[in-house]
Amino acid sequence: MPEEIASRRSRITPEREAELHEAVLDLLREVGYEALTMDAVAARTKSSKATLYRQWGSKPELVARALRCTKPASLREIDTGTLRGDFHRMVELSDNAQMAKDTALLRGLAHAVHASPELHQALRRLLMEPEISGLDEILRRAVERGEIAPDCPAIRFVPHMLIGAFIALPLMEDRSVDQAFLAAFMDSVVFPALGV
Amino acid sequence: MPEEIASRRSRITPEREAELHEAVLDLLREVGYEALTMDAVAARTKSSKATLYRQWGSKPELVARALRCTKPASLREIDTGTLRGDFHRMVELSDNAQMAKDTALLRGLAHAVHASPELHQALRRLLMEPEISGLDEILRRAVERGEIAPDCPAIRFVPHMLIGAFIALPLMEDRSVDQAFLAAFMDSVVFPALGV
Repeated sequence: MPEEIASRRSRITPEREAELHEAVLDLLREVGYEALTMDAVAARTKSSKATLYRQWGSKPELVARALRCTKPASLREIDTGTLRGDFHRMVELSDNAQMAKDTALLRGLAHAVHASPELHQALRRLLMEPEISGLDEILRRAVERGEIAPDCPAIRFVPHMLIGAFIALPLMEDRSVDQAFLAAFMDSVVFPALGV
Repeated sequence: MPEEIASRRSRITPEREAELHEAVLDLLREVGYEALTMDAVAARTKSSKATLYRQWGSKPELVARALRCTKPASLREIDTGTLRGDFHRMVELSDNAQMAKDTALLRGLAHAVHASPELHQALRRLLMEPEISGLDEILRRAVERGEIAPDCPAIRFVPHMLIGAFIALPLMEDRSVDQAFLAAFMDSVVFPALGV
């Protein structure tokens, strides 16, 4: 984060920030991305539009930051000492109810992502890239410990496997994933592909 | 297909049907699903709305059938004698230019699928289920030939892996998959997970 933005962002308390993010997510669920306005966020949270723009810069940025707050923990914080341990911790941290809410929310955003390159870019930068780099870190440590062969060709496809696990079930069977499904997918697909 | 619909559908020639489907896809790309009307399809194809409804029943059905026509070949028609052969044939049949067009089209439909359960159901019935059952058939033969262990836990996740391969790249890097990517994914992920 550039320093200037960091200092602008420090003007409100973390509690107030969390409140604002929660209000944005409520509005997203209620009206969708296209119909969500900075006016509505300002009214709902009893803040001025000037504050919102000063704090977040733009609607895509505000929405992406609000979505990031729904993540219970970052993959970066996981380090159990083994690859199996790290991936199973990842599953444990995925709350079933939260995943069901996320599925509904992200589905509602699919069209907005298509229509707004700014939103797509903000989501990629704030949600996707940190998770992928956290995942890379987990895999790098596993290679260092000798759990995965350094030239294993499946390493670069781990994000694609996990995205498939999360997206295929809603598409195919109209239900969101749960911990049991994710754990079975890890054991049946991800570990064998990595030769673990 | 119920017999009554089959006989209703036989009233126009296959060439005329292909023309109508092409016009529907053009309109989809131009205006999106929500704004696509049966009136516009009728005007574009110089046919009556009554014919369209008699032939296809509804807009979701018409759109799903038009999309099915973009598929170069069904997985059901692939049978090379080995699992590797079948999967590589699947990759060969996936035309790069067509996949790029499909990615754009399906992205545009993502929101419509969310908003219209009828469209989601029609797409699942006409596009997804036939492909998944074709895939099941390919895997069933591989088990019979002894290429895959009958109790291999990855078998049931093959659709999820393939959906991940197709969807993750556009999400992560904003580009659609090509044959080289798909072939690498098969060799690095799908075959090792299946123990082939």
